[in-house]
Amino acid sequence: MERIEHRAVSGGWQDVYRHTSTALGCEMNFAIYLPPQAATQRLPVLYWLSGLTCTEQNFITKAGAQRYAAEHGVILVAPDTSPRGDAVADAEGYDLGKGAGFYVNATRQPWAAHYRMYDYIVQELPALIEAKFPVTDARAISGHSMGGHGALVIALRNPQRYRSVSAFSPIVAPTQVPWGDKAFSAYLGPDRDAWKAYDATELVQTSAPPLPLLIDQGDADEFLDAQLRPQLFAQAAEQAGYPITLRMQPGYDHSYYFMASFIGEHIAHHARALKA
Amino acid sequence: MERIEHRAVSGGWQDVYRHTSTALGCEMNFAIYLPPQAATQRLPVLYWLSGLTCTEQNFITKAGAQRYAAEHGVILVAPDTSPRGDAVADAEGYDLGKGAGFYVNATRQPWAAHYRMYDYIVQELPALIEAKFPVTDARAISGHSMGGHGALVIALRNPQRYRSVSAFSPIVAPTQVPWGDKAFSAYLGPDRDAWKAYDATELVQTSAPPLPLLIDQGDADEFLDAQLRPQLFAQAAEQAGYPITLRMQPGYDHSYYFMASFIGEHIAHHARALKA
Repeated sequence: MERIEHRAVSGGWQDVYRHTSTALGCEMNFAIYLPPQAATQRLPVLYWLSGLTCTEQNFITKAGAQRYAAEHGVILVAPDTSPRGDAVADAEGYDLGKGAGFYVNATRQPWAAHYRMYDYIVQELPALIEAKFPVTDARAISGHSMGGHGALVIALRNPQRYRSVSAFSPIVAPTQVPWGDKAFSAYLGPDRDAWKAYDATELVQTSAPPLPLLIDQGDADEFLDAQLRPQLFAQAAEQAGYPITLRMQPGYDHSYYFMASFIGEHIAHHARALKA
Repeated sequence: MERIEHRAVSGGWQDVYRHTSTALGCEMNFAIYLPPQAATQRLPVLYWLSGLTCTEQNFITKAGAQRYAAEHGVILVAPDTSPRGDAVADAEGYDLGKGAGFYVNATRQPWAAHYRMYDYIVQELPALIEAKFPVTDARAISGHSMGGHGALVIALRNPQRYRSVSAFSPIVAPTQVPWGDKAFSAYLGPDRDAWKAYDATELVQTSAPPLPLLIDQGDADEFLDAQLRPQLFAQAAEQAGYPITLRMQPGYDHSYYFMASFIGEHIAHHARALKA
């Protein structure tokens, strides 16, 4: 593991590391923000999963999250969104292949060789973080768009591993929208039953125990009606008796300006659960 | 004037406009953040000048300034850093030509035809802002690196037009460092006496009345010793009896992470003066 960036911000350090991932079979970058408290104590960790086309850079440069992480004493970990490198399969278009791992374990070729982002995020990356950095075992998870999908799916499938979950503009029902249909057809094949293990609207019907769950969605989001459809998740959660908070935010779109506007409230949401 | 971006952030609107500049003889973009208070009242304006290679986008996407502008009720205006377009002269390298206007009025060809950023920032852009947006005549100015130089020079030459000034990592003595030597040789020609009108360390010796002036400088800034040298400015200010606040910030580099860490304090500095 090699540190490739090291920058002071909000009294702490925004670092980027490169390491060899066994789950993904390639070199990967991840970003970690160590707030000032990390110099003297172990801190809980909020994992952030980014959306389509992103790398580990987008969140750390545009969300303005570090000041809130410093305020609350939370470490932020932001991985890349897919396996990388010349040996890794790719596709035309921004919504399949590199930058579009969808946080699944692919079962179909040519994807299955490297696209195992679910295992990477759930197992390998936390194990690395917990071995190498001053963290507690208290974890939370959040993300944006495809990363909001990833955060919801991973938290709902592993409620014992996380204290809280949140999402901005998440894909909540990938089995019912074009982005999910394209990605899951490629990564998982034609058996749509296999897709349900990666669909938050399916998973919320049986997940227990419930975690504190917050979703923010801009009502001017250009992908709202075709790809995101948060009401599908809200209805399934309500029927299942799973308490969630879904906030429709008037005027906001799908951009990082939306995340920058509410990331402080999300970090406060997680800090409450992480320190409870 | 055409609005080309319109995004909700921190309760207000981050807009980008395109207009034809008479000072520069080309089409220019500028960004303006209208905090929520702008819907019902006139507000003071903080002009932000960016550094080498930047456009109007860098500050608005990376500094996290909008939340503080909303807190204090200040409009933010962030112009581009040079004239643009196919008709505009350019040069090899990032530190001359497009993206490197240095906020001067060029007197040498091929630059003089378009590179009149001083007039654009001091006269044309404020006149446009004051004609088209809900602003008062209270102005402040700030910037980073080359833009910190621009902010200091413009405020020191026009103290009656601004209530306060600040800078991050500014070029304070361009006549004494390589960046300034290259740019001023090209834009202003070999007469070094003509350069003094754009050198903050020269100007602070005679500027009056003094404005509230804040400089933040990271001590891990890779350009500190060769290009920035804030002590030259501090010494000249002290000799002239011009009160300034220069803060050396341990560990911080030249990046937007540094600005994101302290932009809240800079906006508070300007808000105090703008509302006094």
